[in-house]
Order: sequence, then structure tokens, then C-alpha cells
Amino acid sequence: MQRVGNVRCAGDEGEGMTERLVIVGGDAAGMTAATQARRRRDADDLEIVAFERGHYTSYSACGIPYFVGDIVEELETIIVRSPEAFREHNDIAAHIHHEVTEIDLDARKLRVRDLKASSERTEGFDHLVIATGATPIKPEWPGGDAEGVFGVQVLGDGVDIRTWVDERKPARAVVIGGGYIGIEMAEAFKLRGLEVTLVDMASQPMTTLDSDMGSIVADRMRAMDITLYLNEEVQSLEEDGGRVRAVVTEKRTIPADIVCLGLGVRPNVELAENAGIAIGSAGGVVVDRRMRTSAEGVWSAGDCAEKFHLVSRRSVAIPLGTHANKEGRVAGINIGGGYETFPGVVGTAVSKVCNLEVARTGLKESEAADAGFDFLTTVTDSTTRAGYFPGSAPIKTKLVVEKQSGRLLGAQIIGEEGAAKRIDVLATALWNSMTVEQMLNLDLSYAPPFAPVWDPVLIAARKAWQQVEETIQVDH
Amino acid sequence: MQRVGNVRCAGDEGEGMTERLVIVGGDAAGMTAATQARRRRDADDLEIVAFERGHYTSYSACGIPYFVGDIVEELETIIVRSPEAFREHNDIAAHIHHEVTEIDLDARKLRVRDLKASSERTEGFDHLVIATGATPIKPEWPGGDAEGVFGVQVLGDGVDIRTWVDERKPARAVVIGGGYIGIEMAEAFKLRGLEVTLVDMASQPMTTLDSDMGSIVADRMRAMDITLYLNEEVQSLEEDGGRVRAVVTEKRTIPADIVCLGLGVRPNVELAENAGIAIGSAGGVVVDRRMRTSAEGVWSAGDCAEKFHLVSRRSVAIPLGTHANKEGRVAGINIGGGYETFPGVVGTAVSKVCNLEVARTGLKESEAADAGFDFLTTVTDSTTRAGYFPGSAPIKTKLVVEKQSGRLLGAQIIGEEGAAKRIDVLATALWNSMTVEQMLNLDLSYAPPFAPVWDPVLIAARKAWQQVEETIQVDH
Repeated sequence: MQRVGNVRCAGDEGEGMTERLVIVGGDAAGMTAATQARRRRDADDLEIVAFERGHYTSYSACGIPYFVGDIVEELETIIVRSPEAFREHNDIAAHIHHEVTEIDLDARKLRVRDLKASSERTEGFDHLVIATGATPIKPEWPGGDAEGVFGVQVLGDGVDIRTWVDERKPARAVVIGGGYIGIEMAEAFKLRGLEVTLVDMASQPMTTLDSDMGSIVADRMRAMDITLYLNEEVQSLEEDGGRVRAVVTEKRTIPADIVCLGLGVRPNVELAENAGIAIGSAGGVVVDRRMRTSAEGVWSAGDCAEKFHLVSRRSVAIPLGTHANKEGRVAGINIGGGYETFPGVVGTAVSKVCNLEVARTGLKESEAADAGFDFLTTVTDSTTRAGYFPGSAPIKTKLVVEKQSGRLLGAQIIGEEGAAKRIDVLATALWNSMTVEQMLNLDLSYAPPFAPVWDPVLIAARKAWQQVEETIQVDH
Repeated sequence: MQRVGNVRCAGDEGEGMTERLVIVGGDAAGMTAATQARRRRDADDLEIVAFERGHYTSYSACGIPYFVGDIVEELETIIVRSPEAFREHNDIAAHIHHEVTEIDLDARKLRVRDLKASSERTEGFDHLVIATGATPIKPEWPGGDAEGVFGVQVLGDGVDIRTWVDERKPARAVVIGGGYIGIEMAEAFKLRGLEVTLVDMASQPMTTLDSDMGSIVADRMRAMDITLYLNEEVQSLEEDGGRVRAVVTEKRTIPADIVCLGLGVRPNVELAENAGIAIGSAGGVVVDRRMRTSAEGVWSAGDCAEKFHLVSRRSVAIPLGTHANKEGRVAGINIGGGYETFPGVVGTAVSKVCNLEVARTGLKESEAADAGFDFLTTVTDSTTRAGYFPGSAPIKTKLVVEKQSGRLLGAQIIGEEGAAKRIDVLATALWNSMTVEQMLNLDLSYAPPFAPVWDPVLIAARKAWQQVEETIQVDH
């Protein structure tokens, strides 16, 4: 094991004393923090214990829809590391089926419930990482607890849904909520041969996009024979013998043999809040750049922690595995005695829905308005490759740009194979506060199999800059 | 027609007088300059005439290997705009088969040779754009002028090669030179069923990469059954009845029914040089940020013009359609009375060779050394998608990083489908002079079909930053 920058951190009680780090939540953020701390401090210097209330540690929650849709066949492949492997390779004691129910900051103690043995015990800590993730939003519908109603948050949900589909052979699925997880689940059910309906209160699926872009996703879903009921609110669920039978909105009753919730998640902060740790305006645990909470020696990372949005300059709650990994890394390095910071996010997200690649970064129109920006938008159509090259496919790029400065504020991309990853160039431009004028001559790669001679990103920047120039002329 | 920012430029002789812009070279740079100037100035204000010595205007030279390989079937598709279309849509008189043989700067006149009529005439100009492109490098080999020996520079070459393959049905092709055009041509001949040999003086194909990365390309070419003779210099060509029969190196005689040159190109500056216009250290026409040459009212853009390399801070000659388009745009806007600059390049290039995606940006090792940087390098292996997701493929990322600052200096990527376009993130990072530390937490898009939870770019940055930190520790 390599020890890098072995500087002890505050709270160290001297040579020979073993400190104890406890991780609450055994997925990406928590276990990354644990392994990073371990890289810098040996087991005789820092004991590391993790408690996970579920059955799995360190898995790819984003893989769940693909496991349900049978695109990914083996559950094991989406588990990054098992409790046994953590013990063997990292000297980390990861306990599954263990729920931390209370934090006593003054006594530096936790109450831990062993869910299998139904017993409770007390555990001490010197350093604590709160990585409790997020909780699916689930309104209190009548009938909402019927069998056959599933959230999609932990890996166990994926196993349960797939087992239900395999064994009960449902014919009709209803997905409530049209976020990317909801759409991915709708598609997964479709792949499994079910009749699929998606219900959403919003006027479009994927409200992470502006409505003009979201409507393209809606069209594609309908073309895939997924029934969409938009602007409709679910009022109750009907059951039959304890098993879900239908979803009831104010407009109709939709027969359902399986119901899946895709209403999004909120930070799971109850434990932290009860301990008196500060919760922020976005509903997550407040952390600084080093992932420290308001309580000394207590760190937080992942979906439960707020992130700083580098464009809106506000705290946000964005549940994404990529942030969880980065934040866990930063927390772990700092706990290990190093110095590392997590500057924030620009709100990048990508997904593949109904064979459409969809990506966004920065602010969409309503977010730019909320953040007080005076902005304009442009939408540009181009192709993923040189127009004459086989496999060339449409790509639509929307930019949100500050009117006076020309600064890029956000971008959305919808297209076919090869379209979405271009969002990373725009995310990097946002990270560097570039204006669309500065982007005009970016030296992006060109060859016929990869792009037209003007990459779609450059075409979008040109169009936006032209509009900025015209705006300035008009304003004179 | 829209007129934007209609400010007259210097040299304007007052209302009512029509000025004359002459473009020398009718491909990307020249014709983009022409159309951009036209957007800002109507025909009664600015007459625009273009002379092209070849048969085609405004085509994708990068499409030639794909046309020869029959991946692109129709020649017309790689022609962006014909002379007729320029006349009709842009009021630009584009004359093909016309070669400008002399520029008289004082008299503001050109000597123009009509190649079809074999006549010469004199044409006047107020503004001149030199967009003469590049010339394939062709040593003076004995037998080098035999029939069946082709360069790959203008669209006519592609037509000639394809016709030769179709009609003469050659069995054995020899490509001399292993740059990306040479490799693409070798692959094209392979696709057409020929036995293919590639000869190069260098120890690897694709010397735009470091040798460790280039050797991967060599292995792939051999696996495709292309014979490689490296470290071998061509000494002569053998002919039989005026038609090429073999390529002779110091080590062997290689039978050949068709020979293709892929030795690269040099800026075609003879015309400019003879007129007394400044030529730079990289062998191209010297231009400033607005694409002005040393002569008043004379502009240059494209492969014949030098570019400023934003990392090495030196002038370079990089023949690429994407630069030609950008530079042509900048020249045209300035001629049209606007104000636009081309800041430079970071040396990005991408190609697909033998089903391998290959990309580079910034400086490779030898270039970083030449530019005086003290650097380290890292090579990282990752996958294009989440490891468990179908279609996940290997991607190898090499970074060249300044040792003390951690500043990114260059990057090279080799991988399968979905790998290469990631170079654009690295090119954008270079553009913004980012350090690998600043890149660690870049908010790049993540979802299983598109990337592992740590994008390969981030993994590469992490590894490089770790090495920078260790270097600093050692140096203490």
C-alpha cells in the first residue's frame, strides 16, 4: 500500500494511537472516501468501518435500468467492490444490513442497528463521513404501498424489479415521473415486452431540458410506442389483494401490473439533521470545498451533500454518481491528511433514452432567469459526422448565452449516435467561463468520420455570437 | 442578403466605386473568405473573383481516401459548392482551370493563365486572398514520374486514383509515407482488395504521435495484413513502358501496380514568395491575427499560411480543413469591413485508421522538448463506456504535462469506437491553459452508455497530477 503525504490531520492523538473513521452509507461516495483515506493512512493508524443498510456496497446505481432491461445481464458486473473485497484489499470493515440511526456528536458515538439480527449497538468514531445518498420522492398516495410498486434507487430495487418482471410476467407497466431514470425505466420495460405508459405532472418529459428540447424526447418516446400522459397528476393507486392494479390520475385510470417511480430523489439528510448538522437551502448537507460539514470531524459526500453550482453561484442538490465519486475522493484525501478541494459542478448530465442521446450542462432557460441572467438562446442543427460520411446523423445544439457579455451559460444537445459526448466541450468551456466569441476558434478535432469541418459545437457558438453581436447593435 | 457591420475597410475609395477582391485558390480557405466578404458587402460594392487551377471548388480533401475506398460512393457529395452555385448564390465568379502565375503588388495586378485555352491575361485587384494550399512532398526519385504514381492533395487526385483502380485493376499497392493520409490510403486500397505495403523512413507510422502510441497503430495495420517496411528510405521507382512496376528501397524491391504518396505536404508559397510577401520559419505565408500578410491589402488563409501554436508559442504549418475554414472566415470578415481574429491552434487532429480511432492535441514529447518544456508523461488505460455496458471498448490516453506547474501540454488518444472525440475536452483545456489539477474535477458527462463514472480524461488527469505531486516531493 502506498502512503502519500502522510501528514496527520487535526484530532490526531499522537503516535501509536489508532483513530477510527466511520462511513455511513456504503456506495460510491462513502467507499471512495474510505479507500482514499486508507491510501494515506495504514490500518494501525486509522481503523475504517463502513455501515450500509442495504445488501450491496459500491455499485453503479446508474446501471439499474440497464439491468432491468436486460442490456446488462449479470448483476455482479455493476458491483464495483464487495464487502469481502474491501476487507481483503483495503482493510476496511464494511457491514451490510447495518443502519446508523443516530449520531451523538459530543460523545463521538453512533447508534447502529443490525437489521438482520434486529439488535442495536453503539459504535465510536473520531472521523465520520455521512454518505447517506438520496431518497426517492414518493407522495403519500392511497394504495401507494401495494405490492408491485417500486422505486429505483438502490441496487436491491433493480433486483426486485427484474425478479418481479421475470416471475410475475406483468403485461402493463406504468412509470410515474419523466426524469431520465423514469424514461430509462420506461424503455427498459419496453425492451422486456411490456405495454408502457409514463405519467408526468409536467408538460414534457425530462424537465432538465427546456421544453423545445424536451418535446423532441417526447416525440421519440411516442414513436417507440410508449404512451405519455403529460400535465397529469397521480391521485391514487388501485390495488387488488394487496397487489397494484392501476394508477389513477384526475383524468383516467391506467391499468398497471407493475408501477415504477421516477419522480426524482431528495438528499437523505434525516440522520445529519437530527444530529444538528447544518442543512442548506437545496435540502442537502452543507459542506465546504474540502467536504467538511458544520460539525468538526464530520464530512459528507455524494447525493446527500449540496454542491456549489459554478454558473448560478448557488447551492444545488444533483444526485449523480460522478459527483459522488469525486466528492468521496476529496473527503478521503482530506481525512487521510492530504489537502484537496471540490470546487463545484456545472450541472452536466447525459443519458441515452429511446436511442436518442440527450445531454445538458450549465443552466437551462428557467434556471438562467432564476439566477438573474439576461440571456439569449440559439438552436443549431448539424450532423455528427461529415454530411457525406456513412453514419452521419442529426445533432441539435441549444446554447443559453449571456446577452451583453456573450458568456456561455448553458447548453443542451439532442442527437443520434456520437452526439451527446460533445457536451463535455461545452462543460469545459463553462468551467473556464468562456464566451461564445472565445469558443469560435476552439481547435476541435476534425475528420470526416468524426465531425463536419465545423464541429456542431463551433457552429452553435458562431450562431450564438452572431446573435450577441446583433443584440448589441440593436441596443445601441 | 444580410449585411452585418457594414464598415468600409482601408483602401475604400468612396461611395459608388466598386472594389475588386481576387481569391487565389478555390478550396476551403479561399471560398470561405469570399463568401464571408460577400455577406458583408454587396456586389455593387465589392466584386469577387476566384481563380482555381484545378477542376473543383470548395471540396473536402479529407474525403478523398474514403472516396477511393468506396466508403463514400458519390464524388458530388464531397463537393461543398460548385462554381455555378457560387455564381448563383453568392455572386462570386469562380474560374476553374485558371492559374495565377504572378502577383504585381505595386500595379495591383495578377497574371492569370487559362489552362484550357492556354492563354494568359492580366487581372486587377484591390484586395487579394492567397489561398494556394499545400503541395505534396515528392522527392526527385528516378522513375518518380511513371504512370500510376499518385499524390493525394486535390480532389482530382482522388478521381484519378479511383479511376486507375477501377480500370487498371492493380493487384499491389505501395504507399510511401505513413502519415494519416498514407495510412488512410493504405486502408482504402485494402478495402478495394489490393495487396498493400506501406514504406516509411521513420520507425513508426503516424509520427504525429509519440512512438509508444504510434506502435499501436503499426500493430493494428499489420493485423489488417498491411505490410510495413519502417526505417526504410525509397531510392527509386521502377517502371515498365512508362508505368510504375516497383518501389526500390535500400533493402528491397517491392512490386507495385499503383504507388501513392503520403509523405505530407508543404505550404504552397511560391507565388507569394516571388511577389516579395514574407514567408516564415515554418515555410508558410506570415499572417497576423486578422490574416493579413506583410503586403497591404493582401490576405492569406489555409494550408499555405502559417499558424501560431498556442502551446509551443511558435509558428507552425498544419494543413487541415478546419483551420482553413476558420482562417478563411476571419479573412473574409475583415475584408468585408468587420473585425475578427484567429488566435491560433493547439495542434488537434483526429483520424480513423484501420478501425482504430487516433487523436492528438498540443505537443507530443519531442515537440515539448523542442519548445523547452520540462515535462512528464503518463499513459492511462480505461474504457469508452462503463465497463459492464455493451460496446465498452479500450481507450488509451497519454498526457504530456509540465513538471513543475502541472500544466497540460499535450494529449494523445488511441481507442475503439467512441474514444477519439474526447480529445476535444483536452484541446479545450489546452486552450484555457489548464493544469491537470484544475482538470481533476471537470464536470464531464457520465452515464453507463457513454463513460465510466470517472471519464478516461479525468482518470488520465488524476494519474498525471499524482505524478506531478510525487515529482515535487522528490525534488524537495
